[in-house]
Amino acid sequence: MYRPQIKVVDCTIRDGGLMNNWQFPKSMVKDVFHGLAEAGVDYVEMGYRVDKKMFSPKEFGPWRFCDEEDLREVAYECDTKISVMCDVGRTDYDAFLPASESIVKLFRVATYVKEIDKAIHLINHIKALGYMVTCNIMAVSTNLEPDLDEALDQLAKTDVDVVYLVDSFGYFYSEQIHYLADKYHERLPGKTLGIHCHDNQRLAFANTIEGIIKNINFVDGSIFGMGRGGGNCTTELLLAFLKNPKFRLAPVLALIEKYFISMQQELKWGYELPFMLTGALNKHPRPALAYVKAGIEGKQQDIVDFYNELVGVDDAV
Amino acid sequence: MYRPQIKVVDCTIRDGGLMNNWQFPKSMVKDVFHGLAEAGVDYVEMGYRVDKKMFSPKEFGPWRFCDEEDLREVAYECDTKISVMCDVGRTDYDAFLPASESIVKLFRVATYVKEIDKAIHLINHIKALGYMVTCNIMAVSTNLEPDLDEALDQLAKTDVDVVYLVDSFGYFYSEQIHYLADKYHERLPGKTLGIHCHDNQRLAFANTIEGIIKNINFVDGSIFGMGRGGGNCTTELLLAFLKNPKFRLAPVLALIEKYFISMQQELKWGYELPFMLTGALNKHPRPALAYVKAGIEGKQQDIVDFYNELVGVDDAV
Repeated sequence: MYRPQIKVVDCTIRDGGLMNNWQFPKSMVKDVFHGLAEAGVDYVEMGYRVDKKMFSPKEFGPWRFCDEEDLREVAYECDTKISVMCDVGRTDYDAFLPASESIVKLFRVATYVKEIDKAIHLINHIKALGYMVTCNIMAVSTNLEPDLDEALDQLAKTDVDVVYLVDSFGYFYSEQIHYLADKYHERLPGKTLGIHCHDNQRLAFANTIEGIIKNINFVDGSIFGMGRGGGNCTTELLLAFLKNPKFRLAPVLALIEKYFISMQQELKWGYELPFMLTGALNKHPRPALAYVKAGIEGKQQDIVDFYNELVGVDDAV
Repeated sequence: MYRPQIKVVDCTIRDGGLMNNWQFPKSMVKDVFHGLAEAGVDYVEMGYRVDKKMFSPKEFGPWRFCDEEDLREVAYECDTKISVMCDVGRTDYDAFLPASESIVKLFRVATYVKEIDKAIHLINHIKALGYMVTCNIMAVSTNLEPDLDEALDQLAKTDVDVVYLVDSFGYFYSEQIHYLADKYHERLPGKTLGIHCHDNQRLAFANTIEGIIKNINFVDGSIFGMGRGGGNCTTELLLAFLKNPKFRLAPVLALIEKYFISMQQELKWGYELPFMLTGALNKHPRPALAYVKAGIEGKQQDIVDFYNELVGVDDAV
């Protein structure tokens, strides 16, 4: 029997844009939104809304900024709602319309633990405009636990709608998801939880299921796993797994065949050794991205050298 | 703290051979065995031993038959032991030397539940020759449970050394692994258990970890996941996860870079939509293999048509 509270958030364009500087053609983004709406996905994250004083629209595609008029060109208001992500420290507070005038229904605030006060400030600002807001705390696999605990306690006192457990580095396995889900539930009484997993170790779908087992209700996926580095839990696996009769898999299969198989071959997200290694070693994918980029440019480094550098024994400090 | 009872069984050549009719050059198989020995892997499965009256050595490579002299050309006796698989109904009972004269240390008998009596007959034959023997019961996701229970009860009365929980179709997720591991432990008191997972839904590594959590000690992997269809749990993820200091990851990374990335691009095992769909629908990968083969031959079928056929509503019977 299905749990109607479970909401699928597809973040293909937002997270996938990290692989191509959000240079998706409007015709494609339109197809993606329409397909995901047909599939019954609850939220579609169309990109980031970053400050244009910090990032140039000449360098990045429209989904780095998610202007209202661009969104309205490719999407429409329906049961499938539009989500946009904001990064703490990269957001123009004046770039938000009141919710009643916007096509966006959900803003997701991405933050590190150390910036939780800034995140809460931004959350309060967006909430006051009438939006639903989540807080996605990134990279918690590298935090000292008292710092994470304090951040969760602070969030518990806010009106934030959903707090996300995020496995930024693709490091966790089930026992760690269980442990953290228990912690988040305990410190955030009454709050809805979400989960966003990376697939560096091919555990993103499994960990998302573990999240569902632990009563996490907002689950992130992306089409064919498109996302930075190791990629994400795939939307198609989620839709094939979830039992809510409203979900339909076929429209997502059609999108994959039309767009994503060829894009994956070109941009190379997913199970590649360098991303597997940063995941297994609980490290940011930065060096792996550089490794893959060098390979595309014909300057392939030896994978064993890369591994040895990554685990490199430093001098004692 | 690691559990010294955990043994890694690499079945790259055996399971991967299903993708290329075991046509691996001897030089490569030699590299694979040596690399896996250097990595500290406990068992390396070099192929099948099938009856030459049923399968022609003209059509299949040497690892379909695993003659002693072929094995001795590429491997040597060391802490990394040689395993060979036998299929019930395809095995020549006269093709086994006494264990003391063979380089093989482990035979694994693959069977369906309905053939468990034949499997036990073969297990007893091989055990009597002095070998260690496992029983790998395939496709249990499609069995009626009383039939599976009876097969396990029969195995409990034999001298078989290890009984494998096998997810042939890549259908299970963690709760099902837990349920079946409990059942196998309960019905096979004192027996060691093994687990062999397929990665159709990207759950093979996760389910193998769940098996370890449930006290399963023989864990199967293959290099870069090479195996039929959706592929297997990868040996490199297992070695990166397990804490036994004897394991070394680097030799496996070197093998992947030298051989397996290019082979994967050609033979296309792993996360491909048709295999994902047969896994999610608990079906044999046969139609997916045909779909991929047609694609390689330029006769690509529409994926949505394939999906609709797979879930096709039959007439009532």
